[in-house]
Order: sequence, then C-alpha cells, then structure tokens
Amino acid sequence: MGRSADYTRQNCAIAATLDIVGEPWTLLIIRDALRGVARFEQWQESLGMARNVLSARLRHLVASGIFETQLYCERPKRYEYHLSEKGLELRPLILHMMEWGRRHVYAETAPSTTLIHSCGHVLKPVVHCAHCAAPMQRGDTTARLNPDAPTIGALQKALEKAG
Amino acid sequence: MGRSADYTRQNCAIAATLDIVGEPWTLLIIRDALRGVARFEQWQESLGMARNVLSARLRHLVASGIFETQLYCERPKRYEYHLSEKGLELRPLILHMMEWGRRHVYAETAPSTTLIHSCGHVLKPVVHCAHCAAPMQRGDTTARLNPDAPTIGALQKALEKAG
Repeated sequence: MGRSADYTRQNCAIAATLDIVGEPWTLLIIRDALRGVARFEQWQESLGMARNVLSARLRHLVASGIFETQLYCERPKRYEYHLSEKGLELRPLILHMMEWGRRHVYAETAPSTTLIHSCGHVLKPVVHCAHCAAPMQRGDTTARLNPDAPTIGALQKALEKAG
Repeated sequence: MGRSADYTRQNCAIAATLDIVGEPWTLLIIRDALRGVARFEQWQESLGMARNVLSARLRHLVASGIFETQLYCERPKRYEYHLSEKGLELRPLILHMMEWGRRHVYAETAPSTTLIHSCGHVLKPVVHCAHCAAPMQRGDTTARLNPDAPTIGALQKALEKAG
C-alpha cells in the first residue's frame, strides 16, 4: 500500500495533483463518485479491486479533503463518501481522460459510457481560457518561472505544523 | 517495472487512458515533453527518477504512440522523444492538473511554473462543450450506456491480432 512514486521533491502544481490522485485506481474511484457511487461495496463491484487497497485509497482521499464522509448505518458503523467541492473540481480531468480514451483507444467502438451534453450532442470537451474565453491553441502560453517555489514535501510539512 | 494496476477488465474510456498514462511518473514525463524536454538526460535531471524506470516508461510511451523517436547521435545511438499528435492531445489533462494543484495544494504560494495565456492573463482553464460552446456546468450531462462495450483487454487483443 506504499506510495507508488515519491513526488515530494517536485515544486510543481501538476506533481502536487498527482501526489493526491495519481495512485493506481484513485481516478477510477473518483470517476465512479461523479456517477453517484458513494459506498464501499459499490466501488468494490465496479472496480473488482482488493478490499484493503480500496479501503486505503478511500482513507487517503478523505484525509486529502476530496471526500467527506456521512454515516448511513449505526451498527456496524458504515460511511458514505461524497465528493467535496475540491473533489468535484476534478471533473475536468475525468472529462478529458474520457475524451482522450474515446478518440485514441476506443476509436470506432463505443465505450461503456458516453456523455450527452444538455445541448443534445455527444460531449466533446474543449479547454478555453477563463479570462478571454478563447479556446486554447498550441503555443498560446508562456511560462512564468518561480525558482523559489516550495517543494510538495515542504508544503506538506508546513501543513502538518499548522494543523 | 510491472504495471501498477490492471485495468484490462474495465470497458471505459477513462480507464483506457489511465492504462496508458496512469503509471507513476508518466504524466510528469509528458509535462516535461510539453515544455520542450526531449532527451533522456533532461528527464533524468528534472525528475530524479531511477534510470531503468524512466527507460521503461519511455519505451512504453513509444509503443503506445505517444512519443515518436528521432535519432540525434549515431555512436552511441541516441534518440530524442517527441510528442505525436496523440501525445499533444494530452495537454488539456496537464492544464487541468496544473490548475487543480495550484488552487488546492499551492493555494497562496506560486508553484515553479505559471502559464500566461496569450491574452496576457494567468491561465485558468475551463471546459466548454465543443458543439454549443457553452461552459460546462454541474449536472449538464446524461449518460448513454453501452453494455456491449469491449473491455480494454479485448481491444488490446484485437490490436495485437490486427498488427
């Protein structure tokens, strides 16, 4: 159940995201949560993964603030896992993974789920810039560098101290 | 170097994407490639990961059609790795991971890289529907299910036969 990669020496927002949701199965757990799955047994059935790994992943996602728990059975104590605001903001990632897999792996075949947008068409997600609303194009960004950015490990230590 | 999770029994486009790019370090390798990294030693320096793991990841990404190789040194033979069209289409994933990590992990601190959009503002990516151009909102999709969708394992076998 150990972490599969140590990103703590990276000082990058992408690595920081992977540090929380990059473990095997985690993004499929979140995929299912976005479709309404909230209980251990439902994930177990959907994913067929080892119970101890599923349990560890859910605990980690609660500790990271992605899921909030809600008691639904007193004896024995059983919890539902609901996506927090922070967890719901992972939806764009899931939508783009869906689109990429559809185009490049499923190609002419349909995968198990296709999303239909409220406009009536099969959803094809595209990224726009929130400020000017233009769709993103290749080479339309420049990087501003911050050599003093804290590493993920340093941020975690600061959090532990603060907590 | 074995795969860290077996998604082959899933019949889902999201799992299909993770099956190709979900291994530890892979999305950071692609992050660096989008910034112009193309040689083994550059990734080694940026990521500080074990050479045999980096080598295995690059081989897998070439086999999956994410990278195309280009010889740049005859003796010894050395290759550069350039993102294919299929690889470049992973950019939305990377942009959204960057945004999520910036908001939820880095918060008030700046990470090592901030992207400035050509409109002059810090990039905040948002997802729109390509058909109607409206920004995506919660609950604006419905699922169309295909119970006969092939599993990832079945797609792979079909590919092997065809190849």
